[in-house]
Amino acid sequence: VVVRAYSQLAAEGYLDVRQGANPSVRAIPDSQPASIAAQSRPLFPKVQYDLRAHLPEVSTFPRHVWLRSVRNALASATNADLSYSDKHGLRKLRLEVSDYLGRARGVVADPDCIVITTGATHAISLLGRVLAERGSTRMAFENPSHRFLHKVARQAGQTLMAVPVDGDGLQVDELGTAQSVLVSPAHQFPTGVVLSADRRTELIAWARRTGGVVIEDDYDAEYRYDRTPIGALQGLSPEHVAYVGSTGKTLAPALRLGWAVLPPSLVGAVADALGTSMVNVSGIDQLAFADFLRRGNFDRHLRRMRVIYRRRRDVAVAALAAELGDLPVSGIAAGLHVVLELSSREIEAAVCAQARSVGVLVESVSQHALPGDHVPAGLLIGYGSVPEPALPQAIERLASAIHIATGSGHQLRSRATVEAVQPRRRRRWQTSTR
Amino acid sequence: VVVRAYSQLAAEGYLDVRQGANPSVRAIPDSQPASIAAQSRPLFPKVQYDLRAHLPEVSTFPRHVWLRSVRNALASATNADLSYSDKHGLRKLRLEVSDYLGRARGVVADPDCIVITTGATHAISLLGRVLAERGSTRMAFENPSHRFLHKVARQAGQTLMAVPVDGDGLQVDELGTAQSVLVSPAHQFPTGVVLSADRRTELIAWARRTGGVVIEDDYDAEYRYDRTPIGALQGLSPEHVAYVGSTGKTLAPALRLGWAVLPPSLVGAVADALGTSMVNVSGIDQLAFADFLRRGNFDRHLRRMRVIYRRRRDVAVAALAAELGDLPVSGIAAGLHVVLELSSREIEAAVCAQARSVGVLVESVSQHALPGDHVPAGLLIGYGSVPEPALPQAIERLASAIHIATGSGHQLRSRATVEAVQPRRRRRWQTSTR
Repeated sequence: VVVRAYSQLAAEGYLDVRQGANPSVRAIPDSQPASIAAQSRPLFPKVQYDLRAHLPEVSTFPRHVWLRSVRNALASATNADLSYSDKHGLRKLRLEVSDYLGRARGVVADPDCIVITTGATHAISLLGRVLAERGSTRMAFENPSHRFLHKVARQAGQTLMAVPVDGDGLQVDELGTAQSVLVSPAHQFPTGVVLSADRRTELIAWARRTGGVVIEDDYDAEYRYDRTPIGALQGLSPEHVAYVGSTGKTLAPALRLGWAVLPPSLVGAVADALGTSMVNVSGIDQLAFADFLRRGNFDRHLRRMRVIYRRRRDVAVAALAAELGDLPVSGIAAGLHVVLELSSREIEAAVCAQARSVGVLVESVSQHALPGDHVPAGLLIGYGSVPEPALPQAIERLASAIHIATGSGHQLRSRATVEAVQPRRRRRWQTSTR
Repeated sequence: VVVRAYSQLAAEGYLDVRQGANPSVRAIPDSQPASIAAQSRPLFPKVQYDLRAHLPEVSTFPRHVWLRSVRNALASATNADLSYSDKHGLRKLRLEVSDYLGRARGVVADPDCIVITTGATHAISLLGRVLAERGSTRMAFENPSHRFLHKVARQAGQTLMAVPVDGDGLQVDELGTAQSVLVSPAHQFPTGVVLSADRRTELIAWARRTGGVVIEDDYDAEYRYDRTPIGALQGLSPEHVAYVGSTGKTLAPALRLGWAVLPPSLVGAVADALGTSMVNVSGIDQLAFADFLRRGNFDRHLRRMRVIYRRRRDVAVAALAAELGDLPVSGIAAGLHVVLELSSREIEAAVCAQARSVGVLVESVSQHALPGDHVPAGLLIGYGSVPEPALPQAIERLASAIHIATGSGHQLRSRATVEAVQPRRRRRWQTSTR
């Protein structure tokens, strides 16, 4: 045992063992233990209400149903499924995703053109790199659009070009020399505008004329409250639109499971980029989600969540009308947040800071603005992750912060009526086709 | 219903609806359906025996035990666990990984210095990018080393520097102007050499002297058959070694779950790079693996697999000795493959092609060589994924291919003895400390 221990320590480089000499501890230069201390983390004031725009409800995650799908996945997985898998993702899952996207989103999704990713951001990051490698480095972004995606695109080697958004969505005639464009047609983030029919046609014509790639971020299109969800742009022109989506807003962000439906000219390169980083989704999770989709559990979960979110939306909008009846609210027909319009960036910043000091986390439109043209100020009020009974207090707390920050020009508490749910006049980002 | 259908089609851009006019189908330029055809895939001859070096056995994946851990994970997951998680990975898992790596591999793993990745390759890719961003673009590689990792490092922005390997492993004095180096000290891929005690000390001294980063790829160190596994290099100097590992060889490649234990100077940047691509491992899987580790199931599974692989190793080596007694075999004390030495690259290529034509998939050493110095020829014979009873036939089939390809200089079938398991003379890549 002693000999084995010594030879082990010698093999690992700790001991010097020579025949006929006593073993000695090997000198390793500067062997100070070094501070592997935890890096200090920023401290936030305690958050009581998290009204950030992108947060879904996760307490409703269907744990039992998901577990059943994991069990079915483990029972049915072949050796090939458990080994190094197809870099595109398991075909069994791509078939189910193709079926779902065709049925629910009007996406023309050949299973051979689908790539399974850890989410929409992962897909956008891969697309950014692949386009950059082909010399396509000018990517247009809606302004405003999610700030996190700005960082992702820049890290992928893209130069961002800001394109303004109006009541019809992206102003296609402002695309200039862009080589690709990232859009959220069904529910623009953060304004909530829908890309109009004319603009859709214009955008596809732009892609056909210039060879530009349209990346469609269908991030929360499943949540439409007044009508059938608007179909995906991709269905108009699958050769020019790269469609990306995920289960982050519909099941749980932690699941890390999404997809890209790609033009045939891009699918090989994106799968290669994915293969080289070996960033695939667990084969067991892929099989589980395929089972979950096949049994209709995803559709069932979406129907359930749509009801929950619609009610939260109604409560939030009514509470906002009651507390701040004179401030216009837009973007209310879909998604997980509404936009409260404010008059300036200074007021935005003051409101966010004041809200935070009383335990309410809320984002502003300007936080998602790109440099360039003027973006109207506003507050993004997310109701996705706040339980319905807590929403009125959360909004009341926010409203009082707004009163303080704005010097209380908004104390009229009137018109707390159901009509408040319907916008009373044409809003800044509102269009007739909505 | 009709009105709704029309307005839906209009909103999606398919119809033109104007007041007082008949709706018309919108003209979309060049609307040919386009060929979204499957891209043609290369055709391989039917593979009967897959003897590639990196393949583990997956049929033994502990499905029931894993399912139990998934159930425990789903039962215990908090809302925070299911939402957007810590980009470093869930702390509950990092604590368990820290404990395991300290206990089993001698890794000094502060949980705050651990980042959970989808595997070792993902970690190496992230490290390559982070180092490149800091101006560290010259990465040394053992020559030979896994060719896939060459591609990964190049895509991450690194220029590769080939450093020769001898019987003591990486020739540290040949590191030249490298700014980082990727090594597999416990079991060099593909030669099977162990980095000697002297070289370990030299390598750490190099890192301290130059500020270079050592990336330790501990890819299959758990499988050591003649002694306790050699401890990780990282334990000698956690400030200079980035340690990467995964469950790909130990549980299943499809699980996509690994880790990096990073010097404090790198952990923030690597976590940021990971956070920006939103490539995280499913929170449910992270909790499941934490549970699996905590209950000792990982250790139990490894003990079981070690016995299985050791027996396969014995059978493979005995069969090789029986069929090709005169050809030297090395790298047999660990891992999932052995190296059969050959005299030239031409013979290598001929053997691989001939083997493939009779349904045997096998890799050569030269396929993993970098340009530069001469790398001795050889065949990598993986026994990881071939069931024990099938191994003798697989080796026999391979041997006949070798006889044909080499013009049958090796038909002496003698010495099919148990001693064949022990190498009979000092091999090319063999060292006394093994």
